[in-house]
Amino acid sequence: MAVYTDVTADDLNEFLACYDIGTLLSYKGIAEGVENSNFLAHTTSGNFILTLYEKRVAEGDLPFFLALMEHLATRGITCPQPVKNRAGGLLGRVAGRPAAIVTFLDGLWIRRPNAGHCAAVGEALARLHLAGADFEMKRANALSMTSWRGLYEHAKGGGDSVRPGLCAAIAEELDTLEQNWPRDLPVGVIHADLFPDNVFFLGDTLSGLIDFYFACTDTLAYDVAICLNAWCFEPDHSYNVTKGRALLREYAKVRNLSAAECAALPMLARGAAMRFLLTRLVDWLAVPNGALVKPKDPLEYFRKLRFHQSVTSVADYGIGA
Amino acid sequence: MAVYTDVTADDLNEFLACYDIGTLLSYKGIAEGVENSNFLAHTTSGNFILTLYEKRVAEGDLPFFLALMEHLATRGITCPQPVKNRAGGLLGRVAGRPAAIVTFLDGLWIRRPNAGHCAAVGEALARLHLAGADFEMKRANALSMTSWRGLYEHAKGGGDSVRPGLCAAIAEELDTLEQNWPRDLPVGVIHADLFPDNVFFLGDTLSGLIDFYFACTDTLAYDVAICLNAWCFEPDHSYNVTKGRALLREYAKVRNLSAAECAALPMLARGAAMRFLLTRLVDWLAVPNGALVKPKDPLEYFRKLRFHQSVTSVADYGIGA
Repeated sequence: MAVYTDVTADDLNEFLACYDIGTLLSYKGIAEGVENSNFLAHTTSGNFILTLYEKRVAEGDLPFFLALMEHLATRGITCPQPVKNRAGGLLGRVAGRPAAIVTFLDGLWIRRPNAGHCAAVGEALARLHLAGADFEMKRANALSMTSWRGLYEHAKGGGDSVRPGLCAAIAEELDTLEQNWPRDLPVGVIHADLFPDNVFFLGDTLSGLIDFYFACTDTLAYDVAICLNAWCFEPDHSYNVTKGRALLREYAKVRNLSAAECAALPMLARGAAMRFLLTRLVDWLAVPNGALVKPKDPLEYFRKLRFHQSVTSVADYGIGA
Repeated sequence: MAVYTDVTADDLNEFLACYDIGTLLSYKGIAEGVENSNFLAHTTSGNFILTLYEKRVAEGDLPFFLALMEHLATRGITCPQPVKNRAGGLLGRVAGRPAAIVTFLDGLWIRRPNAGHCAAVGEALARLHLAGADFEMKRANALSMTSWRGLYEHAKGGGDSVRPGLCAAIAEELDTLEQNWPRDLPVGVIHADLFPDNVFFLGDTLSGLIDFYFACTDTLAYDVAICLNAWCFEPDHSYNVTKGRALLREYAKVRNLSAAECAALPMLARGAAMRFLLTRLVDWLAVPNGALVKPKDPLEYFRKLRFHQSVTSVADYGIGA
């Protein structure tokens, strides 16, 4: 939950004067997103989301994110659509921060996804990858494999206080990942953070994808591996092969997974687990004792990593090679 | 800002099944209210606020608050209206907490009120007092004058760390307040927390009052004194007599202020300043170092108290006795 910047009605009225979306009737800071401040604005034209981009988001990346959402929306992906101001721009400033208005999406996110939800996510992810194929802008993945050792160095001092032996296990795994990281697989636009709270459903129907602020240009199958981690484990951290099979099968129906991609999936899944283990570990160690906001448990991803290390082929995820 | 309890879509769907307000389309935790968790829920019938009452609100008081809002709404006060469930009740449970649904009010709150806003608040407060006259339930003010010494005892250990000499000044003022506190003035339903963030405007028109969770049965003119403190000081803590006059005049046009109430106003204003000084001081001292949420500055109310101590008659607030 997050509202980092206070926005006054005067600030917002001034900003909205550059848009054709009616008169402001109300706005509420909403507890959504961990990187930015988000407000739900009700105007005489309807509901909109105002996002103020905080310091953790690089301002130079914003044109990529906003253009991507616009691109995907025109290709039938239901995602927040940036609203153009009267000058045709997608980006402005509110209270000293870069800011954008996007359309409001109805939908609920699923705390305990079943295999049907996993199937829907697999299909939506493949559609997203296809829709992004002709998107011309590029953005390097700031949290790609090459960044992980730096994150580890940052967290190394406190890592073993979270779990004895954690640092040695991470260092060993980083060696393996660096030596065996899959290269030459198909690359394109990936969401890179398609967790359950970024996927909306209405009833059992997937109704939209949100939060494109980690999107980047990277290995498409790595995005699949992130989703396996995010969607297909049980609360006790055991892998649910039924869910994994559903996600992978529906993905492959829309976008074929090549033999090379399938063969690489176990290593990509290890990498995806490492990426979230490391960023959660850094966040965990950065929070002062006694703080009200409890960061996410890094060890959840250590346990998922242990599973992926035990995998011998893609068949263990539920589909044939 | 506050969302203390996590609410899942399943929790909320189950709760809404007891109401006739359509199907849930989305809900967002909103950064509003410091005592409760609030969610903006969008259903096929419109927008609603779901409030989960957290531990700082006594469950036994909830029927008073909800019945009061219902009572005031039927008497033309624009405030959130509790929605009845199919059994005719106003209160249920979500995620283990007492919970209610109220209607959503459009409107914006004013960060820098002008005299016109103060006039509108004076009028609305008087209308609220009149509308509450035939409300039959009673609730003692848990933060009345008799509670202040206990708050002081609680904060005494750390008070001088906030400002040297603060404790002695509070102790002396408490003696004065206890000896001179106005009694036998007209009593009724008071809002007790009608700060700018609890009053909505659309354009220059007051469009609604919210947050009745400090409402209680107490001296009506004390509510006026709270508003003088909350609305009529400048950012540099100086009293703005033009704003005070506007608030008091418009109040008195709707509900006459008796000579006894006018004469008591300086002491009531000292008490109101003391009440917010003390609760802010307790909150200030309770927050651990390094916490992300910064509590409100208690010394703002110490400075307002200093002004009220210098007042010789109600004329200093802008109206004749």
